Amino acid sequence: MSSGPSNDDVTAVLAANAAFYAAFEAGDLDAMSDVWIHDETVTCVHPGWTRLDGWARIAASWFALFDGPQRLQFIVTNEGVRVVGDAAWVHCDENLIDGERTSTIAAINVFERRDGRWLLAAHHGAGVASR
Amino acid sequence: MSSGPSNDDVTAVLAANAAFYAAFEAGDLDAMSDVWIHDETVTCVHPGWTRLDGWARIAASWFALFDGPQRLQFIVTNEGVRVVGDAAWVHCDENLIDGERTSTIAAINVFERRDGRWLLAAHHGAGVASR
Repeated sequence: MSSGPSNDDVTAVLAANAAFYAAFEAGDLDAMSDVWIHDETVTCVHPGWTRLDGWARIAASWFALFDGPQRLQFIVTNEGVRVVGDAAWVHCDENLIDGERTSTIAAINVFERRDGRWLLAAHHGAGVASR
Repeated sequence: MSSGPSNDDVTAVLAANAAFYAAFEAGDLDAMSDVWIHDETVTCVHPGWTRLDGWARIAASWFALFDGPQRLQFIVTNEGVRVVGDAAWVHCDENLIDGERTSTIAAINVFERRDGRWLLAAHHGAGVASR
């Protein structure tokens, strides 16, 4: 067990992932800003959107998403974590509850550890077709 | 420039990404098998599908996708690479040409360096809505 990630790493990455979804659900732009890396290397794919590159564009997308009165409720399930050095990725299902409708987004969130903090480097969501 | 990835790393990751798409386009299961890590940690989201975990399920999905007579043609554009130690991820657009129709998939491919080789750890594709 010399080279595997520690349980502490996994716990910290899952906490960062949970903070992302808490910010998303709350529609809290400051909290959302706090979980991301703020530079040109970050990328984001909202379901059905073309890719957004760089923090400025990504921040603007969250601002637009949070600007309306609608709040999304999530149940995040099926989490899987992989930690490789100072990089980590979480796969999970975002189960969205929007009134009486529910839908599922398959997501991958990539994190980098910078100055000891796990920060979001990439978010990528894909709609899952209803069966 | 003490801590950044080398140009060699970026080149090697892009070569691994190109090998993945070459195998996909050729419908070559052996070549596809060669680019992936073969263990339980790997994950794959085909556009619109629920997530597949572990190499066995992922291999079966490629077998099913390659089983028919149809071959997909790709033009991969808009590539971006990030290397962090022994992990890397590539974002790109898969422009699919299927007869007279074209469609775009926003993809992220996560690689791990194992024994000096960059191998696919996660593939995640999301359909981009036509505008």
